[in-house]
Amino acid sequence: MNDHIYKKIELVGSSPTGIEDAVNNAVSRAAKTVRNMRWFEVSDIRGHIEDNKIGHWQVTVKIGFTLDA
Amino acid sequence: MNDHIYKKIELVGSSPTGIEDAVNNAVSRAAKTVRNMRWFEVSDIRGHIEDNKIGHWQVTVKIGFTLDA
Amino acid sequence: MNDHIYKKIELVGSSPTGIEDAVNNAVSRAAKTVRNMRWFEVSDIRGHIEDNKIGHWQVTVKIGFTLDA
Amino acid sequence: MNDHIYKKIELVGSSPTGIEDAVNNAVSRAAKTVRNMRWFEVSDIRGHIEDNKIGHWQVTVKIGFTLDA
Amino acid sequence: MNDHIYKKIELVGSSPTGIEDAVNNAVSRAAKTVRNMRWFEVSDIRGHIEDNKIGHWQVTVKIGFTLDA
Amino acid sequence: MNDHIYKKIELVGSSPTGIEDAVNNAVSRAAKTVRNMRWFEVSDIRGHIEDNKIGHWQVTVKIGFTLDA
Amino acid sequence: MNDHIYKKIELVGSSPTGIEDAVNNAVSRAAKTVRNMRWFEVSDIRGHIEDNKIGHWQVTVKIGFTLDA
Amino acid sequence: MNDHIYKKIELVGSSPTGIEDAVNNAVSRAAKTVRNMRWFEVSDIRGHIEDNKIGHWQVTVKIGFTLDA
Amino acid sequence: MNDHIYKKIELVGSSPTGIEDAVNNAVSRAAKTVRNMRWFEVSDIRGHIEDNKIGHWQVTVKIGFTLDA
Amino acid sequence: MNDHIYKKIELVGSSPTGIEDAVNNAVSRAAKTVRNMRWFEVSDIRGHIEDNKIGHWQVTVKIGFTLDA
Amino acid sequence: MNDHIYKKIELVGSSPTGIEDAVNNAVSRAAKTVRNMRWFEVSDIRGHIEDNKIGHWQVTVKIGFTLDA
Amino acid sequence: MNDHIYKKIELVGSSPTGIEDAVNNAVSRAAKTVRNMRWFEVSDIRGHIEDNKIGHWQVTVKIGFTLDA
Repeated sequence: MNDHIYKKIELVGSSPTGIEDAVNNAVSRAAKTVRNMRWFEVSDIRGHIEDNKIGHWQVTVKIGFTLDA
Repeated sequence: MNDHIYKKIELVGSSPTGIEDAVNNAVSRAAKTVRNMRWFEVSDIRGHIEDNKIGHWQVTVKIGFTLDA
Repeated sequence: MNDHIYKKIELVGSSPTGIEDAVNNAVSRAAKTVRNMRWFEVSDIRGHIEDNKIGHWQVTVKIGFTLDA
Repeated sequence: MNDHIYKKIELVGSSPTGIEDAVNNAVSRAAKTVRNMRWFEVSDIRGHIEDNKIGHWQVTVKIGFTLDA
Repeated sequence: MNDHIYKKIELVGSSPTGIEDAVNNAVSRAAKTVRNMRWFEVSDIRGHIEDNKIGHWQVTVKIGFTLDA
Repeated sequence: MNDHIYKKIELVGSSPTGIEDAVNNAVSRAAKTVRNMRWFEVSDIRGHIEDNKIGHWQVTVKIGFTLDA
Repeated sequence: MNDHIYKKIELVGSSPTGIEDAVNNAVSRAAKTVRNMRWFEVSDIRGHIEDNKIGHWQVTVKIGFTLDA
Repeated sequence: MNDHIYKKIELVGSSPTGIEDAVNNAVSRAAKTVRNMRWFEVSDIRGHIEDNKIGHWQVTVKIGFTLDA
Repeated sequence: MNDHIYKKIELVGSSPTGIEDAVNNAVSRAAKTVRNMRWFEVSDIRGHIEDNKIGHWQVTVKIGFTLDA
Repeated sequence: MNDHIYKKIELVGSSPTGIEDAVNNAVSRAAKTVRNMRWFEVSDIRGHIEDNKIGHWQVTVKIGFTLDA
Repeated sequence: MNDHIYKKIELVGSSPTGIEDAVNNAVSRAAKTVRNMRWFEVSDIRGHIEDNKIGHWQVTVKIGFTLDA
Repeated sequence: MNDHIYKKIELVGSSPTGIEDAVNNAVSRAAKTVRNMRWFEVSDIRGHIEDNKIGHWQVTVKIGFTLDA
């Protein structure tokens, strides 16, 4: 276990409801093509405003996953 | 559309319930005096503790809006 | 009130549900040993992914409290 | 001259041609409502991509101007 | 009190004597047009040199004030 | 449109003429393998000096594109 | 002397007069419970505004002290 | 040579022995799927502690490689 | 396991030989008073120069450990 | 070639026309006293505004050059 | 005046009394070998503690001066 | 001792073996022209990759030395 190598990819998830859902959406989408995801790091929180209300949240996350040996 | 100019203002929204509500409150208040808001950026998350519990969240947001040509 | 001195400690709270609960958990735990907590600052948001879903959120918070004179 | 006070506002200028024009556009627009502008600081450079080409540059600038005494 | 919204503006105060006076000057000037100022944050300290001596200090401060509900 | 997920990749474009061309070159190269590019962010500007002149500019850009649902 | 280990704690000192006094107050308070203090680092300068004047300065300092072997 | 385009990927290498080995492991693993690697940048150094000792070092590196024209 | 709370302390380890030993020394010293250490983060690397040679390395590390429930 | 040592100096170049010319001017001036320049890094972009127009750009660059063995 | 080139050097001034004197000392010392100093930027404030009191302040300043054409 | 002034210079040391040697090389080279070196600060760690292996490490260090009174 000591010498695992991980790769990090950077996604932007979005959601009309909030930060947690935006991250959940990013992780769910990543699961379609990436195996062995281990952790995420939130690096930016922003969003769009439409008609004087928050239209959707956009959260940048880095997702780390184990590379096969 | 190419040469739009935007202005960014910096507000601190607060809420007893959480981050999303604090940002919503800031956007709602800005809507009283600012038109054509387009996006927001969260730059700081903090809050007050009262009686060993979170009293309210304070979230700093920059709000961008289109300036009239 | 003018010359209060505060100390800041750094905790990482975790929760399976989201950011606010992770911070709440950190503040609740700190209340067992720290008195006079006044504010918190979120400095990092990350978490673990298990079985392609977010297992728990890990939020780093600094907590400030008043030192006795 | 020693005790001048300046205010800084934050604008985002855009242009299809490049960074300098985006900043020029921001300064020109600010000139409609602000007097005594003295300096600018570029804090972010980004832009939109349309049809695999850069559609326009978006440059965030802070503009400093002298406040009347 | 929980849902107060604050706005932050950014000023540069200057003074020939030092940092504290430069900030004081910025706050005094802001008081001419802003009500309900609550806090300030120093974000940059610099100054001009004239004849091999410090001519004046220039201190960038963000000033937060409560917006009317 | 609310729940789009974006991926960001990081490229370094280079050009003997300047910053804009270096970014253009990076976007053009990315277009060979990436579809649905939406925005770019400049994160570093540097370059090589040869014979006391700037040989070429090297600009680091992050490019964001929409992932298929 | 080569293998000394130091611990850093983070305090916020406050003072109505200025930055130096705020740091002095933090160091004096720390001296009640910490021995062998060696250095300090200023990491944040802010303060409260009351009645359009600076009420007190709040300076965040990290204080380093030698741990017994 | 002037208009080369590079891509940067982000890996986390780990090793029980130290920083250099952790980076070496990341580069070796990358070599299985990436050609024309040119440079690396260390952006984070951390690790796990097990039984009061450092179990392994985890070093985040960005690796830059030339894209085919 | 989901709701663990961690505390982070900040130490500076030193060593005449190098970075890894400086971190090892900090972790070993912390083991005298802290239980359940889980990870460390390197945040600063510096050192003293004596007689034109590196006298010792000084590495700032944050150490995270589990708090009892 | 492996053990080259480089020195970095920090200059501010200015130009009425734009960023590239400001950097070119800095490199040209450095060439009068520095040999073996190898690379530059842009760390700040700002400028003066005169009569509501950009008077000149001021770009801070670090220039790296090889030291003789 | 438009195409002036400036050089920045980095000094650490110290003083037992406070920040302003530490910067003044750095500027005075620089005046012995540098002509045409124009501005300074404070980038770090720290100091030594001796016998539970601040022994001296150490302030890092960058000093900019005009290079002869 | 209280009013010492220090100057900081920025070097990049390189070595095929690792970080410590790269810093040692920079300090040794600086010793040829600088007297009274007192400390160093590592600000960047990177390196070149050749034939899928690390060719040499490049470590940016700031070196502080006492200026004569």
